[in-house]
Amino acid sequence: MYHYLYNVDSPDDLKKLKECELQDYCNELRQFILEESSRNPGHLGSSLGVVELTVALHYVFDTPNDKLIWDVGHQAYAHKIITGRRDRFSQNRKLGGLSGFPKPSESPYDTFSAGHASNSISAALGISTAAKLKGEKRQVVAVIGDGSMTGGLAFEGLNNAGILNTDLLVILNDNNMSIDNGVGALNRYLLKITTSERYNRLKSHIWDAMSSMPELRRMMQNVTNTTKQGLLRQSNLFESLNFRYFGPIDGHDVVHLSKVLADLKSIRGPKLLHVLTTKGKGYAPAENDPSTWHAPGKFDLATGERVKSATKQPPKFQDVFGETLLELARKNSLIVGITPAMPSGSSLSIMMEQLPERCFDVGIAEGHAVTFSAGLAREGMMPFCAIYSSFMQRAYDNVIHDAALQNLDIVFCLDRAGLVGEDGATHHGAYDVAYLRCVPNMTIAAPMNEVELRNIMYTVQSGGYGPVVIRYPRGNGVMLDWKRDFETVEIGKSRTLRDGRELAVLSLGETGNWVSKAIDRIQSESPEISVTHVDLRFAKPLDTKMLHRVAAQHTHVITVENGVRDGGVGSAVTEFFNDNNYNVRVCRLGIPDEFVEQGTPDELKHLCGFDEESVYLKIKELYNAKVNV
Amino acid sequence: MYHYLYNVDSPDDLKKLKECELQDYCNELRQFILEESSRNPGHLGSSLGVVELTVALHYVFDTPNDKLIWDVGHQAYAHKIITGRRDRFSQNRKLGGLSGFPKPSESPYDTFSAGHASNSISAALGISTAAKLKGEKRQVVAVIGDGSMTGGLAFEGLNNAGILNTDLLVILNDNNMSIDNGVGALNRYLLKITTSERYNRLKSHIWDAMSSMPELRRMMQNVTNTTKQGLLRQSNLFESLNFRYFGPIDGHDVVHLSKVLADLKSIRGPKLLHVLTTKGKGYAPAENDPSTWHAPGKFDLATGERVKSATKQPPKFQDVFGETLLELARKNSLIVGITPAMPSGSSLSIMMEQLPERCFDVGIAEGHAVTFSAGLAREGMMPFCAIYSSFMQRAYDNVIHDAALQNLDIVFCLDRAGLVGEDGATHHGAYDVAYLRCVPNMTIAAPMNEVELRNIMYTVQSGGYGPVVIRYPRGNGVMLDWKRDFETVEIGKSRTLRDGRELAVLSLGETGNWVSKAIDRIQSESPEISVTHVDLRFAKPLDTKMLHRVAAQHTHVITVENGVRDGGVGSAVTEFFNDNNYNVRVCRLGIPDEFVEQGTPDELKHLCGFDEESVYLKIKELYNAKVNV
Repeated sequence: MYHYLYNVDSPDDLKKLKECELQDYCNELRQFILEESSRNPGHLGSSLGVVELTVALHYVFDTPNDKLIWDVGHQAYAHKIITGRRDRFSQNRKLGGLSGFPKPSESPYDTFSAGHASNSISAALGISTAAKLKGEKRQVVAVIGDGSMTGGLAFEGLNNAGILNTDLLVILNDNNMSIDNGVGALNRYLLKITTSERYNRLKSHIWDAMSSMPELRRMMQNVTNTTKQGLLRQSNLFESLNFRYFGPIDGHDVVHLSKVLADLKSIRGPKLLHVLTTKGKGYAPAENDPSTWHAPGKFDLATGERVKSATKQPPKFQDVFGETLLELARKNSLIVGITPAMPSGSSLSIMMEQLPERCFDVGIAEGHAVTFSAGLAREGMMPFCAIYSSFMQRAYDNVIHDAALQNLDIVFCLDRAGLVGEDGATHHGAYDVAYLRCVPNMTIAAPMNEVELRNIMYTVQSGGYGPVVIRYPRGNGVMLDWKRDFETVEIGKSRTLRDGRELAVLSLGETGNWVSKAIDRIQSESPEISVTHVDLRFAKPLDTKMLHRVAAQHTHVITVENGVRDGGVGSAVTEFFNDNNYNVRVCRLGIPDEFVEQGTPDELKHLCGFDEESVYLKIKELYNAKVNV
Repeated sequence: MYHYLYNVDSPDDLKKLKECELQDYCNELRQFILEESSRNPGHLGSSLGVVELTVALHYVFDTPNDKLIWDVGHQAYAHKIITGRRDRFSQNRKLGGLSGFPKPSESPYDTFSAGHASNSISAALGISTAAKLKGEKRQVVAVIGDGSMTGGLAFEGLNNAGILNTDLLVILNDNNMSIDNGVGALNRYLLKITTSERYNRLKSHIWDAMSSMPELRRMMQNVTNTTKQGLLRQSNLFESLNFRYFGPIDGHDVVHLSKVLADLKSIRGPKLLHVLTTKGKGYAPAENDPSTWHAPGKFDLATGERVKSATKQPPKFQDVFGETLLELARKNSLIVGITPAMPSGSSLSIMMEQLPERCFDVGIAEGHAVTFSAGLAREGMMPFCAIYSSFMQRAYDNVIHDAALQNLDIVFCLDRAGLVGEDGATHHGAYDVAYLRCVPNMTIAAPMNEVELRNIMYTVQSGGYGPVVIRYPRGNGVMLDWKRDFETVEIGKSRTLRDGRELAVLSLGETGNWVSKAIDRIQSESPEISVTHVDLRFAKPLDTKMLHRVAAQHTHVITVENGVRDGGVGSAVTEFFNDNNYNVRVCRLGIPDEFVEQGTPDELKHLCGFDEESVYLKIKELYNAKVNV
């Protein structure tokens, strides 16, 4: 069935193909990605969209000496397959397998770590600057989507690259999408460029001229003169920042793409090639519904049916957030919803559909999302700002400087807190409790289940609590019957789920569910091991009344959290016992001080030592140590 | 001497002045700022530059119902004086006095907290969006410098504002400066605009047209039509993002400015007014050397002489960093220096003067500074990236995702770590140890003095240590004789300065100097209180060998750090003793869990309870508690 695919184990093999064979190879690559992804889910749409671009890049450039930097990197499947990882691609995103993102330790072709948007231009500029300083000859190419281009970091990179004047090619992969539809003035502007007659005329002139080098040079000379005469007359946004702008061109014509890229190699300085692609290209279901097919899960390749679970599952925490927010917003007109480019991922889309004028997708711009929320709060609105935990790292100063310092009422819904599983090291929401609990005025809640999430949201929507973080994990909750009447939660109050004598387990958030099971197992096997279990519910403020009581009755405490062990809530509890002169030994379970790679959430929790089995064993171990003293 | 100044206690008073009196009032305001600042140092240059703009804004707009948002905010002195704070201005930046920045809790005229650059557009957009949702009529104006405009957050704000279409006026205060000279493609572009004949022609047309409203409307109509025909033909960067662009106009003609602002009030949607100002305007020394006069310290108003200390002082930590980096860079050709717009503040300028091709001022763009450094490191360069501690919060994700995850050799020199004094809550470098020690692969060093700083820099410049943070405070060190031969430091190794029996003090960084004095005093007064003193030198990794030894010999330990108490190195030490089953009581001294306002560093350290006196008292208290058990 495959004619070319298995003959290409490297870019060198690819370069042996004739130009006229390239499209066939692209088709096979696309088919292979589809087959593999239908069985082993991943980021499908973006990867389908850049098959031709990827092939053209490796066909034209001398990788890995020339450097390719993929922004975000979830579009790099074709890149991985071409660069010797075809046979391991079935292990994509699996424990011990390939990372779903470019990863320098995995391959010399993976120039720079990717996963979070908008870093490619800055990284590429550093790489091209190093080459310049060292006198090394190499081409440096950053591929960045129009969604990523809305991130401020990309602008900072362009602004600096425009002045440093290294040989840098930025390829703007424009599909008018981030993960959801593209938003913002830049997206609208790009759309205007691509539909502008003038630009399309200019485009054909350029590419006609490019087909023969002497003409090209003359034309470039003209561009430079024009620039000197007055940049403004014909500048577009990128030219304003001192980039030479080329395009837009068709990103699915691999032969033309290769020619253009080859021509661009000889043009010095910072340049931007605007390439138009279609997300999900070549697979009708994905082309028609790119948001859903960004990461569709398993599917039937022939029918385009996505595989759904047969048994009725508890809802995702995301959906509980989305439904609850809509419910609250219908009654509280001050509530507004904000998300940086994640309406469907965070399920803010549920409110967005019903109350669009009160929801704001601000693009991939986490810092702005937080400061914009702070502006809304300053004038008395009640913003719920939904951000993934690992992306909140990008808005840290905004949280401190714009939210906490002014003690503004904002609710930060930190989705995907803790280990996220298959997306791996770049996406785990590991640090939030550690980096947020040191900030004054912050409240940090972590609901154990759906009802708790709802009740905490209900409680804080009235305002008066300052900035509140609610962290919850990726994926499903634990309750089928979750849509209950709201109850007010006392801020900083824990829930004691079980009273025991021998030792106490203090769990944060959803970890309480499996801690509870571990204790059940202990109690049934060894009734003498009587264990206290407290759902902390808040990482800040701590429930000091409860902690005094626990300390009075226990000498051994285990804390369990889906977050870093050093600096997290376990540390806060340890500080408390120390500060209050209790002789309580705290065993802190959580994510150790190392980067955790991809795998299923269960595999990773086990590796990190805080899954049900680990908690079970730790309780027994501590009990035995205690009675044997 | 002052004819108008003392008659204006509010914007209402200002509005009683005739147009022809405005410039005289501005001159008095400027004189007052100069007189006060010569005695009581502050941010002079920026405030002198916007006197006319500030007067025009309060003259035209209905503050505080209309909202003014000052970006960074160190230019807001005239604003403070006009809005009822003239008589308290002598207490500017002092303990219990006025904040040097806008602060909502200080005045209803201070719309939004400022201090860190580039947040004004996002905040203003939130405020104007709230007004729209609530149906409240108000004008919202953000004033942002061209330096701040290079921050990615400003771009994110523009990108979102261009689409939300609220009534928002952004005033670009263009003096071609951030704190040092403006850098980057945007600055070059702005310079081109201001010198472009075409734009200056367009400008006069617009303002001519504006003088009569019917014409204005017609002209606006034309602009809209032109936009529809093809935005690109005449667009500039801001128009690309759907802003209406006006200017550039002279920012020192207060009457003209007032007219223009009045006209702009009736134009709906997002608009940008480009205003040209001179930093330090009206005071020759400041106009001629704006970098120095950004914050000149005390000076003689008549002569322009800056007041310098009579006695020979130890050097600033900054200068030791700068001199040492140059010294190392001369021998190690891989070393490069990076700073986000703080060459003189961080003293990277010392290397920049001698080795300009290996130094990079990337503009106000901390995220880019870190990711750009990571790109350089990826290709084997040895970047020293100098960032103020509180600004490092803006690059947190870049540190995690681009530096630490790839374990790249980068040295982050975290200047102004700990309490910075007069700049107050926005600028204290309080959180860095807490938010960085939870990140895998990080090394965090804190030198106690100049020689230690030099030796740590010398040690890590060879590479192989992954990302290393060196944190040091604002201001002078403690040694006159600091330029000694380099010695290698063992990473993670502390220095035991004194061996004692009763209790141990573990100090981080420069706090060791006054801890040492406190112990001297104790020893001379009460020789029986024998105290161990360890200079931790590293917050991560901890010197576990030393900690085991301390725990074996002591039951009471005091930790001292110029950083947050919760989550800082004291917490790390507490975790260690707990994890290793030691019954050691740790008393953690540092910054408590609240925002600390302005004051002298000594005042603030005392308030926070970790200055020499506090350490002295704490040692005695713990000793007494111990012997009395």
